[in-house]
Amino acid sequence: MNDFISHAADLPAPTRFPWIAEGIAFGGDYNPEQWPEELWPEDIALMQRAGVTSVSLGIFSWGMLEVADDVWEWGWLDRIMDLLHAGGIGVNLATPTAAPPIWLLQSHPEIATVDADGHRTAQGGRLAWSPSSAVFRRYAVRVVRAVAERYGTHPALRMWHVSNEIGNENGRCFSEETGAAFRVWLAARFGDVEQLNAAWGTAFWGHHYTSFDQIEPPRGARTGHNPALLLDFERFTSDALIGHYRAERDVLREITPDVPITTNFMVMNTPGATDHEVWAREVDIVANDHYTIGADPHRHSELAFSADRVRGLVDGRPWMLMEHSTAAVNWQGVNRAKSAGEMARDSLAHVARGSDGVLFFQWRASTAGAEQFHSAMIPHAGTDSQIFRDVEQLGATLRALAPVRGSRVEKARVALLFDHDAVAALRSGRKPSTRVDPIDLPIAIHRALTQRGIAVDVLPSSADLDGYAAVVVPTLYLVDDALPARVERFAAAGGHVLVTYFSGIADVNNRVRTGGYPGAFRDLLGVRVDEFFPLMADESVELDNGWTADVWLENVDAHDAEVLARVATGERAGVPAYTRRTVGAGSAAYLATRPDEAGVDAVVGDLVDIAGVQPVAVVDAGLEVTRRTADDRSYLFLINQTGLERRAEASGRDLVSGESHEGSVRVAPGAVVVIEESR
Amino acid sequence: MNDFISHAADLPAPTRFPWIAEGIAFGGDYNPEQWPEELWPEDIALMQRAGVTSVSLGIFSWGMLEVADDVWEWGWLDRIMDLLHAGGIGVNLATPTAAPPIWLLQSHPEIATVDADGHRTAQGGRLAWSPSSAVFRRYAVRVVRAVAERYGTHPALRMWHVSNEIGNENGRCFSEETGAAFRVWLAARFGDVEQLNAAWGTAFWGHHYTSFDQIEPPRGARTGHNPALLLDFERFTSDALIGHYRAERDVLREITPDVPITTNFMVMNTPGATDHEVWAREVDIVANDHYTIGADPHRHSELAFSADRVRGLVDGRPWMLMEHSTAAVNWQGVNRAKSAGEMARDSLAHVARGSDGVLFFQWRASTAGAEQFHSAMIPHAGTDSQIFRDVEQLGATLRALAPVRGSRVEKARVALLFDHDAVAALRSGRKPSTRVDPIDLPIAIHRALTQRGIAVDVLPSSADLDGYAAVVVPTLYLVDDALPARVERFAAAGGHVLVTYFSGIADVNNRVRTGGYPGAFRDLLGVRVDEFFPLMADESVELDNGWTADVWLENVDAHDAEVLARVATGERAGVPAYTRRTVGAGSAAYLATRPDEAGVDAVVGDLVDIAGVQPVAVVDAGLEVTRRTADDRSYLFLINQTGLERRAEASGRDLVSGESHEGSVRVAPGAVVVIEESR
Amino acid sequence: MNDFISHAADLPAPTRFPWIAEGIAFGGDYNPEQWPEELWPEDIALMQRAGVTSVSLGIFSWGMLEVADDVWEWGWLDRIMDLLHAGGIGVNLATPTAAPPIWLLQSHPEIATVDADGHRTAQGGRLAWSPSSAVFRRYAVRVVRAVAERYGTHPALRMWHVSNEIGNENGRCFSEETGAAFRVWLAARFGDVEQLNAAWGTAFWGHHYTSFDQIEPPRGARTGHNPALLLDFERFTSDALIGHYRAERDVLREITPDVPITTNFMVMNTPGATDHEVWAREVDIVANDHYTIGADPHRHSELAFSADRVRGLVDGRPWMLMEHSTAAVNWQGVNRAKSAGEMARDSLAHVARGSDGVLFFQWRASTAGAEQFHSAMIPHAGTDSQIFRDVEQLGATLRALAPVRGSRVEKARVALLFDHDAVAALRSGRKPSTRVDPIDLPIAIHRALTQRGIAVDVLPSSADLDGYAAVVVPTLYLVDDALPARVERFAAAGGHVLVTYFSGIADVNNRVRTGGYPGAFRDLLGVRVDEFFPLMADESVELDNGWTADVWLENVDAHDAEVLARVATGERAGVPAYTRRTVGAGSAAYLATRPDEAGVDAVVGDLVDIAGVQPVAVVDAGLEVTRRTADDRSYLFLINQTGLERRAEASGRDLVSGESHEGSVRVAPGAVVVIEESR
Repeated sequence: MNDFISHAADLPAPTRFPWIAEGIAFGGDYNPEQWPEELWPEDIALMQRAGVTSVSLGIFSWGMLEVADDVWEWGWLDRIMDLLHAGGIGVNLATPTAAPPIWLLQSHPEIATVDADGHRTAQGGRLAWSPSSAVFRRYAVRVVRAVAERYGTHPALRMWHVSNEIGNENGRCFSEETGAAFRVWLAARFGDVEQLNAAWGTAFWGHHYTSFDQIEPPRGARTGHNPALLLDFERFTSDALIGHYRAERDVLREITPDVPITTNFMVMNTPGATDHEVWAREVDIVANDHYTIGADPHRHSELAFSADRVRGLVDGRPWMLMEHSTAAVNWQGVNRAKSAGEMARDSLAHVARGSDGVLFFQWRASTAGAEQFHSAMIPHAGTDSQIFRDVEQLGATLRALAPVRGSRVEKARVALLFDHDAVAALRSGRKPSTRVDPIDLPIAIHRALTQRGIAVDVLPSSADLDGYAAVVVPTLYLVDDALPARVERFAAAGGHVLVTYFSGIADVNNRVRTGGYPGAFRDLLGVRVDEFFPLMADESVELDNGWTADVWLENVDAHDAEVLARVATGERAGVPAYTRRTVGAGSAAYLATRPDEAGVDAVVGDLVDIAGVQPVAVVDAGLEVTRRTADDRSYLFLINQTGLERRAEASGRDLVSGESHEGSVRVAPGAVVVIEESR
Repeated sequence: MNDFISHAADLPAPTRFPWIAEGIAFGGDYNPEQWPEELWPEDIALMQRAGVTSVSLGIFSWGMLEVADDVWEWGWLDRIMDLLHAGGIGVNLATPTAAPPIWLLQSHPEIATVDADGHRTAQGGRLAWSPSSAVFRRYAVRVVRAVAERYGTHPALRMWHVSNEIGNENGRCFSEETGAAFRVWLAARFGDVEQLNAAWGTAFWGHHYTSFDQIEPPRGARTGHNPALLLDFERFTSDALIGHYRAERDVLREITPDVPITTNFMVMNTPGATDHEVWAREVDIVANDHYTIGADPHRHSELAFSADRVRGLVDGRPWMLMEHSTAAVNWQGVNRAKSAGEMARDSLAHVARGSDGVLFFQWRASTAGAEQFHSAMIPHAGTDSQIFRDVEQLGATLRALAPVRGSRVEKARVALLFDHDAVAALRSGRKPSTRVDPIDLPIAIHRALTQRGIAVDVLPSSADLDGYAAVVVPTLYLVDDALPARVERFAAAGGHVLVTYFSGIADVNNRVRTGGYPGAFRDLLGVRVDEFFPLMADESVELDNGWTADVWLENVDAHDAEVLARVATGERAGVPAYTRRTVGAGSAAYLATRPDEAGVDAVVGDLVDIAGVQPVAVVDAGLEVTRRTADDRSYLFLINQTGLERRAEASGRDLVSGESHEGSVRVAPGAVVVIEESR
Repeated sequence: MNDFISHAADLPAPTRFPWIAEGIAFGGDYNPEQWPEELWPEDIALMQRAGVTSVSLGIFSWGMLEVADDVWEWGWLDRIMDLLHAGGIGVNLATPTAAPPIWLLQSHPEIATVDADGHRTAQGGRLAWSPSSAVFRRYAVRVVRAVAERYGTHPALRMWHVSNEIGNENGRCFSEETGAAFRVWLAARFGDVEQLNAAWGTAFWGHHYTSFDQIEPPRGARTGHNPALLLDFERFTSDALIGHYRAERDVLREITPDVPITTNFMVMNTPGATDHEVWAREVDIVANDHYTIGADPHRHSELAFSADRVRGLVDGRPWMLMEHSTAAVNWQGVNRAKSAGEMARDSLAHVARGSDGVLFFQWRASTAGAEQFHSAMIPHAGTDSQIFRDVEQLGATLRALAPVRGSRVEKARVALLFDHDAVAALRSGRKPSTRVDPIDLPIAIHRALTQRGIAVDVLPSSADLDGYAAVVVPTLYLVDDALPARVERFAAAGGHVLVTYFSGIADVNNRVRTGGYPGAFRDLLGVRVDEFFPLMADESVELDNGWTADVWLENVDAHDAEVLARVATGERAGVPAYTRRTVGAGSAAYLATRPDEAGVDAVVGDLVDIAGVQPVAVVDAGLEVTRRTADDRSYLFLINQTGLERRAEASGRDLVSGESHEGSVRVAPGAVVVIEESR
């Protein structure tokens, strides 16, 4: 059936909503208000030609709808909604709160965010608002209600798109009003200020609080702030932003209980201000914006990691790609264009990892405004362009993949634990080395697994580990008190664990666990570390197994573990760098350094060997492989990330070409093949 | 006759003024107030010894003249004016507004500039004032009137020097008062706010304005501002600064209609806040400050480009070099001293390109104050110094060049179009690549031409193209709607055009022209581009003609042009990089990448070959050659930028040595020779 | 006798105080308030086990003692004082003013520092207060009085530790209140504002002041400030900070005249806000905090220079190391751990150069707070750790070195002049090259001397030069008018002087001395320079004696000096780079460039050869050697900074092992040996 099930926390029970399109949703942000109305019919004709099913409408249109305080101009939106409906295009209608109108910032500058040095954000951008501003909330809820009441029953409406990238430019606010909200949040969290003092360790520097009223956001103070305060401010910030989402959603739910609701997350290379694990419980379907970084030679691996991470937020259920780019963006300094076929590979890689939609920012490239050089489905050059031709072909491909819609990515045998909270903790306060990045090693390990054809589920550390053969815990700096025992039980029951350096160091209050590193995992791993040896920027060592490593070493005492590799060069020669302990029927390995690519691959090889994990399918190197399954069918995605023809062992029908394969499939350089597998 | 003609816009007709010196003006800023009065007679004696004709006096003396609000101390200035006159030294007397007195900033801190985050400039520097401050304007005009009334008839006075480097430190102001002035400017420009909305494309992010009152300067907003707002703020800023100049000038003109008026521009490597093309119409003679960048190995080429650009501002008429340095400056981090002979080469290179003056900052090196390590004509070491000996020799040389004064640089056959407005547009808003610099390629092409001995006129794009054989349009990002047709007509009539990448992209509202790049020049060039391929910082490609190129490639469809070179390596191999279309009796070439030096030279070679452009004279490589001409005579300047003897084909008399040459002239390493040519 | 003599300026005569420990003081900062009280007895037992004699207590405890305005909780401090006393541990009790309580910042935010752009420091750090805040002073003095009255007679009390690292985070303040204090300071310095105008050269930019009321701190002004204003603001800042110290000290002295008083200086690689030469006269014993920079391969040389500099502040008397680290710090980006034995070498290197104490920050590593990853005597891992084992061993070593306590480092034959004021001047205002660092060459020359086993006294330039054979004046930018004659007399009397580039350039008002560089030393050296030739970042030259040099060259006219080396390459070839003039019975050499390590060593070799300076003892390369002496005995410190066994010529008893040596001592790789020398 063409529907999907929401597990949103505000619904009393899982609820079925109609899916927004026939098959995979295809389309993008559409901003008709930037173009003469005469062009609209051509837009719709071109959407039809390209196979567009869905547009996100009205995202930045507040100022065009509420043209002055409580003065409304609905006409243009009425007309384009009708035209889209007539053209068979479904609408994800946005609440237009991402960009407050000029008149609102003029009459209420106090709604704007304030930075750590007290500078208030000026008009002229977007997302200028603080989620803690009561005035902004009042105006935002009013416009949401107005939009919902006007369009809640419009036949073009498929889904609500709440605001846009909440937390992007408004990721941090240090205003007085935010301070007050932070205090309320802290009071709710700790109940008593002495609980806070104990949790935060405020005896340090004598920063004892006698009342919640004394607490301020971490404004510019010439020294580092208390890491616990920093982390709780991160958590508060995330909650405040999600709180804004909830306020909008509640209005929409009240007025249109039958229309699904989402907002676009930003699960990308650099974790942002919001904890998507919390947020994922609040939307009817998770939607994600994903942009690759042109300078990253492994950008397709980062994409794969992010997509697997998004799926992990919702227990493997389908999700949707709300925004990505056809070609270059405009915010990366040098904005690399995509290579031939890269747009299609990126799009289908998201589908391969669980997305039921491929949407872009945006339909038609703007000629004016701050994003005038951001690529779009129709570039400045118009439809006679490689980009539009690629868009049309992608539309055709997605139509052929319609049967995939609603299937789930096959559960992996390897889980990789990744928490926003642990990332936030690692960024909150001074650490032994600025070279320890919270996402570098997770992506590198994920890439090594992916390159072997191994499926990985990227999961919050609270996730159930049952059914996995192997669990990776990479630079998971903060873990709660329960995780070590859960991982220990997993291993004792036959699971195989790989923990890497700087994991399990801090507790939930961002406090260092004592008694030897890595505090939470010391017993599990059978090692004990009394000192870290961060390596300087130009420093690396050789290990006795031939690997090169950098960033980090430790003074590992492997008192209850086998040493698999030791440092062989430099003044730390002899120190263990890689160990393994047998734990019941399973094992727990520890990687105490950052190996180069070959080393990471070897570590991953050890893990999958010992855990007996098999690839999704036997494929040539460079062929990304995933499988989506439904009750009675399965689809094998083969994405050729190389410039050479690659082969996979597979049998079934190519959904796009219709060709049948028996035993083996060839994938052209840079191409993508989706096989409906024979049973 | 020893005079010059002003075309200033405030004069009803071209007006003749006496020139400020006999022959080439020579001298510099003179700040006697920093030295004991006993030293003044020695200064004047040394000026006489060095051949100084002209000093710029009183530039930063406001606080020494108006010692408290409306309390005046004229004595010292009276005395030095008299002494200078007695010594035969002419004075460019400054209005002292560049540095407001401490008492004024104390009583009126609101006159100071405010940055984009709201920080008001504190006292202690110079040019702290906002051109939009009404209070400052009132005080400034009063001091100008006082100075003009007191010294307007002094016999030492030769010219008014209005303020100093207006727009340097006060290049941007974001105060509330500036905001109000910006709104008035916008209202005058657009008439109706809906015209502004249409021009700026304010539908983007819903930034629709319902009144001019809602518009603010582009203050800190955490996101990029609208590129049209940014560009108009740049234009407003330039107009506000020039407006301040006009206010001072009007007072001076009223009181001393017979005294010429100028102010010192800053046409240098990095374009600043003012549009010199506008400003040039407001002064009686254009004066320029020029400082080379020690780290630039091609600094003499940058000088040549800047000097040609200055001349292009005034239709080839003479101008004057108001400031440069004898040796090191103090603001470049490492302040490179000049090489042996470099001061003389720099000085004469300006004369060679049209300057009728060689002035320095400053006469005597300060021992105190913020510029204590800036070089001067008399260094800290005193007159027993290489610098002063070089100054004396330069003075003698310039005396010998007196006949050159008033001649014009011979009109070139090649025009290179360069607009402040296009530069400002390229800097206003996010572009595909931060590596595209608005002045890099113009200078590189100018250098390649200069190295071949070819004269170039650097002109605003509004300039008349008649009489040129070739026109270069290098990274001219913004062009108005009229230019393409003008260039097309030029080519059709037999002219030859070279356009380079990222030209003609935006219209006058900084809006991208659609239908394929390079919008304005697509038809002229017979190419159409649907996508840019910016190259990463470490990326370069080979072309099939052997050039190396970086920064930029494009997906060129040369549907109506001959492909002269294609990319040969990398994933963009096969894409055209250099094309030419026959246009009537002429041609239009397109360079879609940034070649290395050899490649630029080859492109330039193609252009001058096809256009049949000859060098000014046949010279060895490394010998810069220009010609200045008057009714009945001409002067060939030969500047040897190499460490080897170089030869030129020339006949005539060496103005300095008096030697006569027939057919050939040898120029010693690093030397300059000026030949009065035989007829 | 176990005491020491204070020469503090506030005492009418030198005064004898009991020393704080038996022998070398050993211990560190102790922050029991961060730990459960149950842990305290274990702490004390572990201190006893490690040989700890002394702890610095209560440094950041204000908020834990005065829990609200005038509300006091003394209990915990009473109890730990008693426990420490019972355990035999002496206490340096801190006045807790380094970290104002939250309630104080909440009720009086105006006590906080303000930066040059007007941002007031927020709560959450430490040292947030301005030394010019009257309100803060009132609260601070009150808490000092309360602490002094309560604990002034406690038997555990050994010494007062005033505040902490005064001037660290509060090194600069630009508030209005600071401005008022600055004006008072200037009025006291100059008496009449015209004196200030003359001294500062305010005629520059017409910044003439007609009243002290018009002067402001050098706030953000978009241009460089007057270098004289900048330097006097540096001096005022230092005086304001020391003034705060004096205010606290006066209270302590009044209440506890028998208890010695100190505060911890920060004589380290980068000079800070306070002039330690002034400050050293105000404390009973100089205490220093010293942290090495992990990225500096010569960090032990920087340590030796700093320790010699500290000793030079107090005329060679003993001092104490108040803080250093056992291992990594947490504020250097990548925080390098120490190598094996490095902690002991660092500790004993301080003792070898005059310290009578070895104290650490801190006893037990914090788990919470901004310094949670700063190393400590007990690391997070606890006592079963290499760090604690090393601490125990160091304690044992120091017990064995008890006889050394109170001895003086033998007076050197070489003096190296180094002034805070000259450093401050070099940093105040734009100079010819940002690559000229005020401490780089002093350390390099000190290192070259140290590597030869030569003892060096690092002295303020006001120090008596009698008794020295050689004096080094390295990049001493500012010197007063008296120094040149003093150095000249020193040389004439047979002393040998080495001056390096950019010395003697400015007078006490930061004004450039005219007539040729290096102004103050021109006559002494017999050279005259009319122009500097700073070298670009990637530029170096060869000299004709084979050295390589960079950073700096000069146009040296060696009219009255022998040229020892000239530039051999590049466009400055032929310029003298190293000269010597015979001066009476002595000589004066000038080094006009920055040679590489071999060159510096050769220059130093020339100096010690000509001056006949011998090493402290004949030692192998890489063995640092110093001697401490008392009436009837002497101690030779041998620190092996290499990975190989090294030998020294020495006879006597190894204080630690008890072994006797005759003629020669072997020192194991990385080890330290202290020999009580045979007489």
